Amino acid sequence: MHDFTSHMPIAIDEAKAAGERGEVPVGAVIVSADGEIIARAGNETRALNDPTAHAEILAIRRACAALGSERLIGCSLWVTLEPCPMCAAAIGFARISRLYFGASDPKSGGVDHGPRIFDASSAHHVPELFNGIAEDQCTVLLRDFFAQKRRASKKGQ
Amino acid sequence: MHDFTSHMPIAIDEAKAAGERGEVPVGAVIVSADGEIIARAGNETRALNDPTAHAEILAIRRACAALGSERLIGCSLWVTLEPCPMCAAAIGFARISRLYFGASDPKSGGVDHGPRIFDASSAHHVPELFNGIAEDQCTVLLRDFFAQKRRASKKGQ
Repeated sequence: MHDFTSHMPIAIDEAKAAGERGEVPVGAVIVSADGEIIARAGNETRALNDPTAHAEILAIRRACAALGSERLIGCSLWVTLEPCPMCAAAIGFARISRLYFGASDPKSGGVDHGPRIFDASSAHHVPELFNGIAEDQCTVLLRDFFAQKRRASKKGQ
Repeated sequence: MHDFTSHMPIAIDEAKAAGERGEVPVGAVIVSADGEIIARAGNETRALNDPTAHAEILAIRRACAALGSERLIGCSLWVTLEPCPMCAAAIGFARISRLYFGASDPKSGGVDHGPRIFDASSAHHVPELFNGIAEDQCTVLLRDFFAQKRRASKKGQ
């Protein structure tokens, strides 16, 4: 049975928590086919000094650890921002069945923009794609974060 | 001063060790501008149940942890196989200065093939690229590994 609950509110909570820690506010959650939350994460690139510690990568690593499997077949990933090419490729490797994302990312996205990972003929696995989920809320989070950073940086000059 | 030593033999050693552990034999090493080895890794996707645990990602994470920095400016990454799109994007995020790779990967590569990550107009950072380093050795390693797997799988039938 497919679970029709929107899990974006959890991803948004993770994004907000990331922003409060000074990270770019992006959050993700991985949910099993029957609606069980398996892993959730916010960006931690700064805290971990790890450029690969995007919310999606951390959620995938945590979900795989929880299930003891390299593959998350049947799972859905909800993320507040269009995944970058690194995360989109990782989502393919993890065989995630459905990808739901919020804000569009024309500058750094890798699904609807840039290298469009899932459109490449070499893509081994393509999830079902749903974009624009709670898009306004997800976009405002990012916009407010960067506006605040710009104000802080002007004050510091 | 630029270091002209080939560090591919170390990446090959890591690839061989990965193959002996039953992982796809790919190895990577990250070297500072003055030739110091900062991190080395082989594939660990099976051992760690982590689809993101490619040699390059592990080497980047280890090097960033060793240097306490999200960025590896001035560093070189040597890897036995053309990086996939996930790893190529991570190499860009880590701001690695030079990427040397061995075997070409027409099926799953993301540098000279598929989504060609560094050719996208949205690529924020493009390292200097050197392909075909010790190509024959790197290719033979992979070919032998998969030939052996096919033989083992036929026997198991």
